[in-house]
Amino acid sequence: MSNLDTLIQDLVIANRILAKEDVVDAYGHVSVRHPENPNRFLIARSVSPELVGADDIVELGLDGQPVGDDKRALYLERFIHAAIFEARPDVMAVVHAHAEDTLAFGVAGATKLRPVVHSGAFIGPEVPVWDIADNFGDTNLLVTDMAQGRDLAKCLGGNNVVLMRGHGFAAASRSLIEVVRMSVYLPRNARVLMRAKQLGGETKYLSAGEIEARNRGYRPYSPESWRAWEYWANRAGCGHLLTRPEG
Amino acid sequence: MSNLDTLIQDLVIANRILAKEDVVDAYGHVSVRHPENPNRFLIARSVSPELVGADDIVELGLDGQPVGDDKRALYLERFIHAAIFEARPDVMAVVHAHAEDTLAFGVAGATKLRPVVHSGAFIGPEVPVWDIADNFGDTNLLVTDMAQGRDLAKCLGGNNVVLMRGHGFAAASRSLIEVVRMSVYLPRNARVLMRAKQLGGETKYLSAGEIEARNRGYRPYSPESWRAWEYWANRAGCGHLLTRPEG
Amino acid sequence: MSNLDTLIQDLVIANRILAKEDVVDAYGHVSVRHPENPNRFLIARSVSPELVGADDIVELGLDGQPVGDDKRALYLERFIHAAIFEARPDVMAVVHAHAEDTLAFGVAGATKLRPVVHSGAFIGPEVPVWDIADNFGDTNLLVTDMAQGRDLAKCLGGNNVVLMRGHGFAAASRSLIEVVRMSVYLPRNARVLMRAKQLGGETKYLSAGEIEARNRGYRPYSPESWRAWEYWANRAGCGHLLTRPEG
Amino acid sequence: MSNLDTLIQDLVIANRILAKEDVVDAYGHVSVRHPENPNRFLIARSVSPELVGADDIVELGLDGQPVGDDKRALYLERFIHAAIFEARPDVMAVVHAHAEDTLAFGVAGATKLRPVVHSGAFIGPEVPVWDIADNFGDTNLLVTDMAQGRDLAKCLGGNNVVLMRGHGFAAASRSLIEVVRMSVYLPRNARVLMRAKQLGGETKYLSAGEIEARNRGYRPYSPESWRAWEYWANRAGCGHLLTRPEG
Repeated sequence: MSNLDTLIQDLVIANRILAKEDVVDAYGHVSVRHPENPNRFLIARSVSPELVGADDIVELGLDGQPVGDDKRALYLERFIHAAIFEARPDVMAVVHAHAEDTLAFGVAGATKLRPVVHSGAFIGPEVPVWDIADNFGDTNLLVTDMAQGRDLAKCLGGNNVVLMRGHGFAAASRSLIEVVRMSVYLPRNARVLMRAKQLGGETKYLSAGEIEARNRGYRPYSPESWRAWEYWANRAGCGHLLTRPEG
Repeated sequence: MSNLDTLIQDLVIANRILAKEDVVDAYGHVSVRHPENPNRFLIARSVSPELVGADDIVELGLDGQPVGDDKRALYLERFIHAAIFEARPDVMAVVHAHAEDTLAFGVAGATKLRPVVHSGAFIGPEVPVWDIADNFGDTNLLVTDMAQGRDLAKCLGGNNVVLMRGHGFAAASRSLIEVVRMSVYLPRNARVLMRAKQLGGETKYLSAGEIEARNRGYRPYSPESWRAWEYWANRAGCGHLLTRPEG
Repeated sequence: MSNLDTLIQDLVIANRILAKEDVVDAYGHVSVRHPENPNRFLIARSVSPELVGADDIVELGLDGQPVGDDKRALYLERFIHAAIFEARPDVMAVVHAHAEDTLAFGVAGATKLRPVVHSGAFIGPEVPVWDIADNFGDTNLLVTDMAQGRDLAKCLGGNNVVLMRGHGFAAASRSLIEVVRMSVYLPRNARVLMRAKQLGGETKYLSAGEIEARNRGYRPYSPESWRAWEYWANRAGCGHLLTRPEG
Repeated sequence: MSNLDTLIQDLVIANRILAKEDVVDAYGHVSVRHPENPNRFLIARSVSPELVGADDIVELGLDGQPVGDDKRALYLERFIHAAIFEARPDVMAVVHAHAEDTLAFGVAGATKLRPVVHSGAFIGPEVPVWDIADNFGDTNLLVTDMAQGRDLAKCLGGNNVVLMRGHGFAAASRSLIEVVRMSVYLPRNARVLMRAKQLGGETKYLSAGEIEARNRGYRPYSPESWRAWEYWANRAGCGHLLTRPEG
């Protein structure tokens, strides 16, 4: 297969994993930057992630509009992806989802979401909360144009994850495998932090040095990264789609 | 298929979705107003939603009694549906269920159930709590006649959802697809609100304007609405029963 | 089939339902009084409930010892069943299990387990907590002889459920269908009560009159009772074993 | 089969059980001491526990290095196992995992993890918390050499379980069956303790005498121990791999 075909296959796997692991349901989406043209990205047409196949993948520009004359219905919120790819050349893959256990941290005033477990380290030291109402007033909370997308990307800044008040989160990473792993472990880190707060006492967060040490060690095709990707793909019933890059 | 046959098929799908998504178990039911006669509605005979087929659907009048001489056992609580259809000409579909994560809000004095996430917006700005004991004293908590049903419908008023103390909830919408979606996301909104309260600080609820903006945008056969219906039907093992209306 | 064969089949179904609904895991058991000899009861040999078949059912006396010379290993805690059948002629079926969400109520000093939802009404107005240490000191917490079983039965008294501190619960009912239903909804009632306490305010428990009204209405083969039994049996993969008694 | 082949088969079963019961996901591992050479142990190569087969088992020395010239990628954290087998001649099997519901106890300052239910008794009266930062400063939190492994083993001491702050736990037992059972019930005990704390009042922990009584009674091939092993193996889809030792 060509690099592009392999990446599309991986994007299908990513969709299925996120569905199986309850990061997305009928809603939520994952995208990857085009491997040959950094001004384009790949994402599914408007269909539930669990049902995505290679034929559902469309190519969009950094304005969120389709390349060519694809007439199929698109995700209303594709501008989240477009704006993050536009603002962050280092980002290769984006997830937007409503994973339930992240939502409370977007609406509760008191506790900030920060890494407490090593699998959550990749969310980074700070997870800002974006409130669409701040600049756009009363909306349906969806990010439906580039102005809203850019406002969200600005709040994300150089971080890896931004919570969206009353709605969900957006996550941005340097590879598809990494953004999937981060999206699966983000709700886990949220749950552990919630329970630690309930148990009481002073919560021990990961230190800045620990977060940095984990980040330095990450490589998308290390045996450890691959192990999770292979495991989740099998759980999602698409282990047969896996393509391991030559070492 | 005729309109009626299609609607019956959709009602079967709705039953299966509600079972698969843990909104109902052996108990709970969903109904839809008859498409040709607003004084009738369709609902299953006394059988668990997961096991409902087209042959199990019966036609009842707004008094909760069967049209014709169907002798099969009926849901004891069909009067919930009858009374809401009677009181609310705008309502096309009703769910009654005991979804576990809504129950605490019916028995805890302190916190009102209100939308905190965009998927929960459709429950509306206010969710009243009906206590059968207020007007009927010590009962088995079931709504087993029109007097009780009408008392419940009165408490529901113009809202979309009413909690029933120590029992469950009733939800009323302008379409079957919408009442199913609302019933699936109602427990999610309840869980997020519970967790936000545990995290502490001031909870940010959706504003009245946001709830209204989401409500205005709803159309039962938009790609976004259909996406969830298709997804849930597939999860429930009845994707093959789907009939998409002509655009 | 004979009455006895039908009851054995129902006992197999009960085992499988309790496993599927997470009331039991490898441990926990359900028994039924012999239909022809009230001084005997039927229970599985020492095997996990999920794996129980009709051939695994053994017949024990009210001393907990096998009738005849069955040499197969038996549940160490069969004395729970023996002692309750001995003390309570009205009881036809018993469950002992460690359902996780009931356990906190046996070890937390502050909150008593009481019905807050209508499906939990059958546990009755009071659920005593038995502590084996009170009369037997430091043990392995298992009820392994008649003296311990009788002490537990004494604490149960005329109630339907007794919590066992640090261990689990025992439930006693007038039919197999009822004891299964009660055992499935007991953890649900526990969860709702926990969440209501977390939400705060004054918890509204079911009134004594409501509990009594629900109890009066119960019949094991009503369409409503049968509906749950049929539903759970199908979920547990043994709907084909169902035998509905002639109306 | 030879003793060694049987033990390898059991190790495969153990991997699958831990995956099915959510003790491990893509990460986490289980090992067993070599039956003929106490200076060696068996563990899978770097692969997710759910996907482990007999061919994936490798033989390592107490320095964590492979015996012979196996070139396959190994778990980075195999030193946890090596160091515990080195320090504790009584230990025959080790699990390292990140089971979610144990994690909060490693990062919350206020509540110690101790047995509150009889199935949790095997974790022992005390569960120390090891913080890798105490002696190694800012790391990626992984135990990647013998110095770190030995520091962890020292904190474990004579106990059965040690929590690893921000990371997971290590459990050590006298048999493979026991370490699996302990690892499955450890998160359950953690959940019950969390809920008991939320319910309030004075939590009743198991007494030292009760913990000791349970510990004395344990035999790996008793009908009660076997029942759980058989049950979990069947749930994990590998009941056909079971080999019951001659009585």
